[in-house]
Amino acid sequence: MATQRYGMAVRLKDEKREYYIENHANVWPEVLEELKKINVKNYSIFLKEDFMFGYLEYEGDNFDGDMATMQKIPIVEKWTNLMIDCFNPFPNNEENNSWVMMDQIFYME
Amino acid sequence: MATQRYGMAVRLKDEKREYYIENHANVWPEVLEELKKINVKNYSIFLKEDFMFGYLEYEGDNFDGDMATMQKIPIVEKWTNLMIDCFNPFPNNEENNSWVMMDQIFYME
Repeated sequence: MATQRYGMAVRLKDEKREYYIENHANVWPEVLEELKKINVKNYSIFLKEDFMFGYLEYEGDNFDGDMATMQKIPIVEKWTNLMIDCFNPFPNNEENNSWVMMDQIFYME
Repeated sequence: MATQRYGMAVRLKDEKREYYIENHANVWPEVLEELKKINVKNYSIFLKEDFMFGYLEYEGDNFDGDMATMQKIPIVEKWTNLMIDCFNPFPNNEENNSWVMMDQIFYME
């Protein structure tokens, strides 16, 4: 499959900032393994002020389906719930308590 | 050189939104060539609300120096000035009228 690039954004609660950073320096290996199984690669998260941006590449053919299936794996669900508890909604996206997907408006190989 | 990954953020003026998007669907080829010359690759820009996130990879050994040198090339400077005019400062970074660099807090190959 051709590589697809995803950008996503969320905000970090001040009181969870250090917790989130420490956990992302040492993500549970089982979670990383499941990401690799669904063909996610080259995944970075960046932080500035309380804003976070995630960038990842995906080489499958059903991103939403693969992500939803992965989220149902108990250890992934446990991890995700701990991380969602660190988030504040992105501006104008208060109905979404986790990452919001962004639109790619430029690409240079 | 090993690949280095950079994330950067800025906000887009509402009245310049369409202009910026249209120009980034069709960036001046001379600007893209200069980026490639300094070993920038896999460069994406994402937009959500008025927030923009840029992700790029760099394979040189002096990112700040290479970027500063490139910015002095007249056609690049002209492009950059047009684009900076589209930006609002990132929250808490009002002294910077262009992209602010973010901290990478996670990476998975």
